Amino acid sequence: MADPWKEAMDHAVLVARKAGNVIRDALQNEVKIMTKSSSVDLVTKTDQRVEKLIISSVKEKFPKHSFIGEESVAAGEPCILTDNPTWIIDPVDGTTNFVHGFPFVAVSIGFAVNKELEFGVVYSCVQDKMYTGRKGKGAYCDGEKLEVSDKTEMEKSMIISELGSNRDHETVSKIFSTMQKILCIPVHGLRGSGTAATNMCLVASGAVEAFFEIGIHCWDIAAGAVIVTEAGGVLLDVDGGPFDLMSRRMVSANNRTIADRIIKEIEIFPAERDDVVKK
Amino acid sequence: MADPWKEAMDHAVLVARKAGNVIRDALQNEVKIMTKSSSVDLVTKTDQRVEKLIISSVKEKFPKHSFIGEESVAAGEPCILTDNPTWIIDPVDGTTNFVHGFPFVAVSIGFAVNKELEFGVVYSCVQDKMYTGRKGKGAYCDGEKLEVSDKTEMEKSMIISELGSNRDHETVSKIFSTMQKILCIPVHGLRGSGTAATNMCLVASGAVEAFFEIGIHCWDIAAGAVIVTEAGGVLLDVDGGPFDLMSRRMVSANNRTIADRIIKEIEIFPAERDDVVKK
Repeated sequence: MADPWKEAMDHAVLVARKAGNVIRDALQNEVKIMTKSSSVDLVTKTDQRVEKLIISSVKEKFPKHSFIGEESVAAGEPCILTDNPTWIIDPVDGTTNFVHGFPFVAVSIGFAVNKELEFGVVYSCVQDKMYTGRKGKGAYCDGEKLEVSDKTEMEKSMIISELGSNRDHETVSKIFSTMQKILCIPVHGLRGSGTAATNMCLVASGAVEAFFEIGIHCWDIAAGAVIVTEAGGVLLDVDGGPFDLMSRRMVSANNRTIADRIIKEIEIFPAERDDVVKK
Repeated sequence: MADPWKEAMDHAVLVARKAGNVIRDALQNEVKIMTKSSSVDLVTKTDQRVEKLIISSVKEKFPKHSFIGEESVAAGEPCILTDNPTWIIDPVDGTTNFVHGFPFVAVSIGFAVNKELEFGVVYSCVQDKMYTGRKGKGAYCDGEKLEVSDKTEMEKSMIISELGSNRDHETVSKIFSTMQKILCIPVHGLRGSGTAATNMCLVASGAVEAFFEIGIHCWDIAAGAVIVTEAGGVLLDVDGGPFDLMSRRMVSANNRTIADRIIKEIEIFPAERDDVVKK
């Protein structure tokens, strides 16, 4: 049977590359900063421009599809996943990196039907790497098949996490305490690229064994979720339960052994779900 | 007056690129790991091969020059800086990244005469970026002049540090405590690329405001030290005193204001000097 979503996925790759070119261009120029919730959580005009570019291009081709985009949600659009074909978009994943010129910035486009992720496209635009994953058909980077690392020993692993944008003392303390416990298992190292989408691609390509975070949003990880699982990896909630795209909690790992070992150390803190209806 | 060290610097660029090509080739293949002091501190055959390649190429052209190289010191050579022209070499900065395929690995070549650094060359070989700095003549990346960021407010800054390879509980606690205090000043973010040489180039190019670490070695930072200062940045000891290449302690920053603010938060732990003579 022909892939019913092939056309959509091809379009996602096309528009992700186009968006990435806009971002790379903007990186050459001065970026104008506006504050969203805090000075840590930056939004630039490029974010909004790139999200509009992606959505309008997709709408033209697929007028009945739905959208969840970081900037649209920030502007008051609902963040509810329905059964309708839905594009889940982070136009500039790694906005802080973008503003500073730190060399990891990604365009992330996930696609779900009947609330199930069908494909994911992450374009790491400074590195010029195009990552794709299609349910049941594998994950690729620039045509090369991706496979997660086969390590099962934490002692030989490299793990990614992020400090996030929350600067609340209790939250930050839990994040650092978790990192310290994991570092001292010991592991080879901890890293953080500053973009969740790129972090998941690093898991998928075997450069790190796992990436976990509390506080990420569905648009940061929808695309990466398909790429990691199609590269042979696993997705779990931070408490070991099933992964929930809207829960803002995730462990992505090369295998269950590594995931479980990390989960043992994670100090959980509250994060409001993405799909809470605000009144 | 003609630059007395131009020929040496040109040769450093040439050999750094050659070394980087060997590393990129090796990254495609399986890397064989040997343990040095612990499973965290990895040395691969590529390290030794690349250091030999650099030293033999330089020796042929400059037979009277001296060398301090990471692998030579590990093999028992002295780590003493004399007045003789000395090449200070890290063949593969970011060995852990290299082993995992995490995309930051650099060749670092510094050059000192009369114990003063004259030039530095850092080739970030996965990114294919060549950074150079020549005392009194500026710092460049692929021909483009580098300038540090002009920010003076910590609240708008991005800072780099590394967790290092020490897993001693007290040391690790001090490292995390320092990071937590700096994050909560607050700053935009903390990053770590896993290579000190690359971190210093990120300071020089303005992508981050500062990079500090205790436990680095002279070969990690000799080249970067010239690149940072020639891009307009500052180098200090972690206690605010003058920078000492052999002390294994460093704050590199875009300016003194940012450096001083970081120094206020650093919890210092002991690190044995590079130039201690072992009996």
